[in-house]
This record gives sequence, structure tokens and C-alpha cells, in this order.
Amino acid sequence: MDDSRFTRRTAIAGAAAAAALATADSAEARKKRHHHHKHKRALTRRADVIVVGAGLSGLTAAREIAFKGKTVIVLEARNRVGGRILNHDIGNGHVTEMGAEFVGPTQDHIIGLSDQLKVERFDTYDTGLNVYYSNGNRQTFSDTLPTGAAPVQVGPEAAAVVAQLDQMSTQVPVDAPWTAPNAADWDSQTLYTWLKNNSASPQFMGVAAAATEAIFGSEPRDVSLLFTLFYIAASGNESTPGTFERNFNTRGGGQQQRYVGGSQLVPLAMANALGRRVRLNSPVRRIEQTRTRVAVVTDKFTYHAKRVIVAVPPPIAGRIIYEPGLSALRDQLTQRMPMGSLMKAEAVYDRPFWRDQGYTGQAISDVGPVKATFDNSPPDGSVGVLMGFIGGTEARQLTQKSPADQQAAALQSFANYFGDQAKSPRSYVQFNWTTETWNRGCPVSVLAPGTLLDFGEAIRRPEGRIHWAGTETSTYWNGYMDGAVRAGERAAAEALAG
Amino acid sequence: MDDSRFTRRTAIAGAAAAAALATADSAEARKKRHHHHKHKRALTRRADVIVVGAGLSGLTAAREIAFKGKTVIVLEARNRVGGRILNHDIGNGHVTEMGAEFVGPTQDHIIGLSDQLKVERFDTYDTGLNVYYSNGNRQTFSDTLPTGAAPVQVGPEAAAVVAQLDQMSTQVPVDAPWTAPNAADWDSQTLYTWLKNNSASPQFMGVAAAATEAIFGSEPRDVSLLFTLFYIAASGNESTPGTFERNFNTRGGGQQQRYVGGSQLVPLAMANALGRRVRLNSPVRRIEQTRTRVAVVTDKFTYHAKRVIVAVPPPIAGRIIYEPGLSALRDQLTQRMPMGSLMKAEAVYDRPFWRDQGYTGQAISDVGPVKATFDNSPPDGSVGVLMGFIGGTEARQLTQKSPADQQAAALQSFANYFGDQAKSPRSYVQFNWTTETWNRGCPVSVLAPGTLLDFGEAIRRPEGRIHWAGTETSTYWNGYMDGAVRAGERAAAEALAG
Repeated sequence: MDDSRFTRRTAIAGAAAAAALATADSAEARKKRHHHHKHKRALTRRADVIVVGAGLSGLTAAREIAFKGKTVIVLEARNRVGGRILNHDIGNGHVTEMGAEFVGPTQDHIIGLSDQLKVERFDTYDTGLNVYYSNGNRQTFSDTLPTGAAPVQVGPEAAAVVAQLDQMSTQVPVDAPWTAPNAADWDSQTLYTWLKNNSASPQFMGVAAAATEAIFGSEPRDVSLLFTLFYIAASGNESTPGTFERNFNTRGGGQQQRYVGGSQLVPLAMANALGRRVRLNSPVRRIEQTRTRVAVVTDKFTYHAKRVIVAVPPPIAGRIIYEPGLSALRDQLTQRMPMGSLMKAEAVYDRPFWRDQGYTGQAISDVGPVKATFDNSPPDGSVGVLMGFIGGTEARQLTQKSPADQQAAALQSFANYFGDQAKSPRSYVQFNWTTETWNRGCPVSVLAPGTLLDFGEAIRRPEGRIHWAGTETSTYWNGYMDGAVRAGERAAAEALAG
Repeated sequence: MDDSRFTRRTAIAGAAAAAALATADSAEARKKRHHHHKHKRALTRRADVIVVGAGLSGLTAAREIAFKGKTVIVLEARNRVGGRILNHDIGNGHVTEMGAEFVGPTQDHIIGLSDQLKVERFDTYDTGLNVYYSNGNRQTFSDTLPTGAAPVQVGPEAAAVVAQLDQMSTQVPVDAPWTAPNAADWDSQTLYTWLKNNSASPQFMGVAAAATEAIFGSEPRDVSLLFTLFYIAASGNESTPGTFERNFNTRGGGQQQRYVGGSQLVPLAMANALGRRVRLNSPVRRIEQTRTRVAVVTDKFTYHAKRVIVAVPPPIAGRIIYEPGLSALRDQLTQRMPMGSLMKAEAVYDRPFWRDQGYTGQAISDVGPVKATFDNSPPDGSVGVLMGFIGGTEARQLTQKSPADQQAAALQSFANYFGDQAKSPRSYVQFNWTTETWNRGCPVSVLAPGTLLDFGEAIRRPEGRIHWAGTETSTYWNGYMDGAVRAGERAAAEALAG
């Protein structure tokens, strides 16, 4: 395993890693690296295609290009790969994830990829009752009811509203939401406005905020109704219509499964197979193109190629200098694709003690800072990990507090849902994606009213020799790992055809 | 006038320029430049304060700092000063303006400044009838009626809606709009949602769109109701409450007066007085700060100072690299302050022929691309200039057409309002602020729902030794020249106090 430099640098242990990486690492790649090593040759700075960003989308694009026999270089700003996917070592060979981690039905592209890379999945723990915490009262409910992950206490209203949203979303084409028959009306109002006009109880509005804080890192007022309907429509695939529930459910939803050894094994396996084609610590500052070539400039080197695929979050892509400048529509679109505000709080316990008490580890709440939790323990349940999303207003306020206050507030949330035992974890770790230089928010770009309607057509449109990847450019599972893989595949096909 | 390098470089002729610049150019500045010239000394790259951006706000800040006896350097990306203020030579010693140009009552700071600089004002031409073009019909109205610049045809409804907005705006503190009693409600909906709930006629909605396209470069769906109310409240000063009308009227409003020789004479006069303190062609790429110092990095040089004032549009400020990175709230605020989409179309005629026919030259329309016009002729009316705003959706669509098609469409608008004579100008000039590298939109950052509420408090908050100027940081006349001056004064006071 002397080739697994990405694994070593990011301190990933996971027992499955070695096998996965060895398998994913092609003989061709190993030979090439060996050759390099032997002759101490300078790394090439010329390729058919350059990919900016070694997240899931960029690595997928690079993998596709390499498979087709073309040369590719991936330039990654950080000293690690994975982008919004990040394992965290919790000791004893176990990991938890600080970023994207779940997969579920209809997410065929990420699942197909991880199967090829032999990264195994396991079911998210969800045996028992969920907790609904409202106005300081803890209640429980079963997510096996027809209302799924919505608390039965707001069940009828949630069912009616969700059914209506799902129905409306069927009219939104995922590749051109701005052409929906009601696009102008739906992109002229916030999700909040629509919910207020279609629901009665403050309890339901509280649950809705908990959902958008986890799903978008945003409040219902921050997002366009049309964008929300697009996001729902995108939560499926070419043969299965999207549903809202699939954004929020473990049982049959996007949170149904997790990866053995942690989700970062997927990008790590791809990076190891790509070997020295992936250049870490190489933030791209400038992209210059002529009619025939493109030059990609980092602090140290200039890379030359026929095409470039930019696979970083839109607000980060907007900070690159482009020569000539991007089109008016593209530049102004990027100005209107802010990242959501999201932290993950994770507490590690000697045991998943909530299981003993008959709880799934899932809670939904109208009191912050953590308003949605999951059981994030390793597959064998030998230690317990509670994971909580802190999103939207909660994240924006909490980020201004001291680390100690942040931890105390998150553990208080855990205790509200699962008892005072939750206040004494073996260890606590928190990740604030909003302070990350190369993300500046998570989980996804969130679109306010008017953006899809007037700027949407620029989202995937190449700018000369520049192609756009990243989950934000995906038609299906936009904002998820599956969307990142899809976008990488699509951008690679574009660059190869160009 | 060998000192007026800014004037020469930007090819401004204006008869008043020489006098204004000579007056504004202090003896101290002249001596200093002479000294430099004589000894061919290298320009210093160290100052008490560095200002990023030689627009109106940055130059005002630099001027204040120089007045206080502190050293200052202004770094400007372009080869001209003025930012969103730009004269255009139309021959025979006349100019027209491609950017900000109007001033009016309560705009005391810009008027005070221009009076000091001896740049003279004159009244915007508004004798006669205005045109209201709706559904292909041309009608006329007088703006001397109580409904002002709103067409009398939608007068009663406009009066009722505007009165209600003005009343609501009195509850919005301009220095903290997020503390308004109804802030959460008002920042949860778009202006469109509120208008739809409070107006009946499609005609009125058409006029409303024409207004927001000119004022914000945006559609009513693009902007938060709270942001709109803040903008109204800001359209006044400490002793006179803001009103919506002041955003749209020549008579008693923000469009009441113009500058003899063109509005760019104001920043040009300041730049000439500052002399070699202003460095053109110096885009700032990176700002690094320690606990005691700040370093500002351009492509060629690194400048050192105690404080830095960033006086560029928020989305442009967001593209600078900061070390250490900005706070989560500030970075995410900047992600949520997109520039509006705005072009100006100007046609020059042998005479202001519409005056002969009894028209003011002002039109408002529900058919684009130009939906609002003004008489932009020079003071003596020796030639006629029609100026039209192309904003919001109109700009976003027109920018994708060929230059010839853009011109033909704009002239068709002029002809709709003032007859076929408008189709044959002596010359035509158009300026698209959205394609400008150092603006990427105009006239101002426009805030969608949720932004003021969760991120507003970061708008003027210094980040260590970095202070923020630019009209977007102003409490009064945000988005206008007066706001730019106010912001520059405030930022200078902060930097001097620090």
C-alpha cells in the first residue's frame, strides 16, 4: 500500500480501505507511478483535460476521462481529496463522517460507482422509535407509519402538504425547471410564503424549518418554491419520480444506507487509482482560454489542456479569475448560488445507549441548535455516535459563539432528545463547513426566488472550453453524492466530445 | 493642467472640468507630485491606510484620510477612476453618463462634496408630459399630479400601494433593518408576493416591474420585501424620512438634478487632488492581516498599511483572497449580495425633438427592453440625448443578443414612446454593467429574502483591520452616489480611529 498517499495524508484507517483501494488502483496507474518514481521525472503539466477540484464530482470526471485513454490532471486546493466528503477517525479503527455520508434508492450512480470500487454499504440504524421534540416536550413516534419521518403529531398536515408539493414537483422538468408551466409563479415566492398559505399549525412550520435546515442549510424563507420543487423532482431518477420524503427518510429514502469505513473511501479509492494525476495543495487562481487551448494557473505552475472541467462549489468557482471573463449570465448566476449554512455535531459514546431505550437515534425538533439527529455509529455498534445537523439560522448564530459554547449547546440538544446521558460523550467533534476556505458553506447552493427563472439556463452551459461539474449542476439528486457523480460523468462526456 | 492624468486617461472634455480639478487639487498634492517627478523616486508602497477601489466611496475615504494628515494609497483595478460613475464623450465638448448621474433632495453628502469640488448641478429636464406605454398603447400624463412619476392611468392604485410601503418603511431602522418589529415576516417574502397580495391590476404590476428594473436592475420577485422597505427608508436622511417616490421622481426626487460636465467630474476631481496616491491598473488579489498590520497584494507589488478599506461592490470584494479567511457570516453575506442586472442605452439626436412635441423625455412602460427613459441632454439642450434603463429580465435576455439586435431593440423602445424619429439617432451608445469585470452588475447589490435577517449585521462590521465601504454599506441612500460618499466617510472615520 505504498501508493495510498491520499489515505495516509488524511489519516483514514478503515479496515475496508486497503482492499478497496488496491482494487480500484489500476495496473496501468501503478505502472505509471512506478515509472515516475524510478526516473524522478518532473510531473507533466499538460493534459487533454484538466479538472479543478478533487471532490466526488471532479474525481469521477477524471476517472471517466482516464478510462477513455485521454490524459487528465486533477488540481485540488486542499491537502486532501473528497471535497464535501470527509471521514473523521474516532479511534479503534472506526470513523464517522463530517460531510456527505448517506445513500439510498434511486441513487444509482453513486451506488454503481461505489460497487465498482468495492466500498461496501450497510443500513443506517433505525430500529425503534423516533423522537419529536416540540415546545420543550419530548414525544415519540414510529417512522414505519405512512407519514414516514414526519412526526405523527404533525402527521396529517405534513402528509397533505408533502403530497401537494410532490404533485407540483411532477410538473418541473429536472433539466429545465424554468420551463415548468407555473415556473414564474413558483419562482416569485419563497417556500415560506407557500407553506404559510398552505398550512395552519406553528408545529408544522417548526418541522418544516428543521427539514430545510438539514436539507439546505437554510430556512424556508431563503429558498424559492420553484427551487424546492426542482429539488424534490430531482430526488429520483429517469424511471422513478422524485419525492420530498426521499430527502428525509432512512426507510426507503436518501438516508437508508451508509458506507463501511466511511463515505470518503469512495473518493479516496478514485484518487488512489488516479495516482499522480491528482495534485494536492494546488489551488487554481486563474483560467485563461483561447479559441484552441486553455491554461490553468496555480500559485506555482501553469497547466495546459484542451478542456477544463470546473468541479468546485459555485461560489468558489466564482472566485477564480477567468480570461476572458465569463458571460454576463454565468457570472451573475454564480453570484446567486450561495452555499447553505451547515455544521455537523457528533458525539461519541461508549455505547449507542439510545438503542437500549428503544430509540432509533433519530430526532426532529423545533428547538435548536441541533434540530435533526441520526445514529451515526459504526456498523458493529461497538461505540455509539450521535450525529446532529445544525443548519440555517441555527448555524449562522452558533458560528459566532465560542467553541465551548457551541459544544455545550449541541450536547444540550442531544440531551433534550435522548436524556442527560448524552451530555457526557467520550469525545465530541464538530465541523463547520461555512468556515472552510474551499467550501464556504454546505450542503449545496441554495437558490432564492428569480434565480432559476432568469439564470437557470447558464447552469450547465459550457463557457468556451470550460465545462461545469459539481453536484449543483446535476439534474437528478442535485446536492447529493449521486448528483456529484452524475455531474462528473456528464462533464467528462462533454469534454471528451469537444 | 499637466496634473490631470485621470482626466486625460479617461478622455473627458467637459468645459467645467479644468476649473473643478484645479480647485480640487490641493497645493500640498501638487508639491508632492512635483517632488516625485523631479527626483524620479519610486512610489511608496506603505501608508497608514490603503483603500481598495477608486470609485466614489473609496476616493471619498482616501480624501478624508489625507485631510486628517494620514498617508493613504488607493489601489484601482481599472485604468480609470469612478467605478459605477462614467462619463462618455458625445462630441462638441458634451458628455453623457453611462452610470450614476442624478442627485436630489436629502442627498446632502454627495451635494456637499460636489459643492466643495465646485462641480455644478443643473435641473434634469422635465417640462411637459410623460409617456405611459402599456399593451402597445401610448398615453401621456403629467408628473405634477400628486401621484408623481406614476402614470395617472394606474395612479390611484399606485398611490395606495406606495403610501402603504412608505408607512411600513417608517418601522425599518436604516442601521439595523433586521430589528424592525415585522422583520421576520417582511424578510420571508418577495416584493412580488406582497404586491400581488396588495394590488389588483396587471397594469400596476407592469409599472412596478419597470420601477424595480430601473432602481434595482431586478424583478419584484428577486428582492425581499424587507430589503425594499429598507431601501425606501434609506431614501432620505437623518431629519427627513425616506419615501419610495424619491427613488423615481425628477420633481423633488433623486433624479432632480445632474452635473454640468457629467457626474464623473466628482471622482475625477478627487482623484486629481489625491494625485499619485491613486494607483491605476492595480487589481488587488489578496489581503493578508496580522494582529498589527495588513498587506495588500497586487500582481506587481505588495502594499503595507495599518488598515485597509475595501470599497468595491460586494461580489467583487468576495473574489479577493483573504488571509486569514473572513468570518463565516461575512463570507456568506457576500455570497448573498448579487449585483442587479443593468444596461443603459443612450441615443444622441441633433435636437431634443421630444421637447418640441411637449414631452419631458420621460417614459414608463410595460414593454421592454427599455421600460424607463429620461432626457439626458447636456444643460444647453444643443443636442438631444435619450437615456433608457434596461434592467432585470430585460437585461438578462438582451445581453445574449448581438450588439446590432440590442441597439435595434432599444431604439424600438424609444420609438414606441417618442415616435419613429427616435429610430435615427446621430449616434448610439450602450453600456452593459453586467459584463464589466470590476462591477459584474449594477446599480447595487440586491438582497433576496432571508439575507438581511440572518446576515445583515455583518454588512459594516470590520474584519480585524479590514473596513468596508461602498454604497452597499450605507444606511442612507444605499445604492446611490450619496450612499457611496457616506460610506466612504464612515469607513475613513473607522480606519482613523483604529
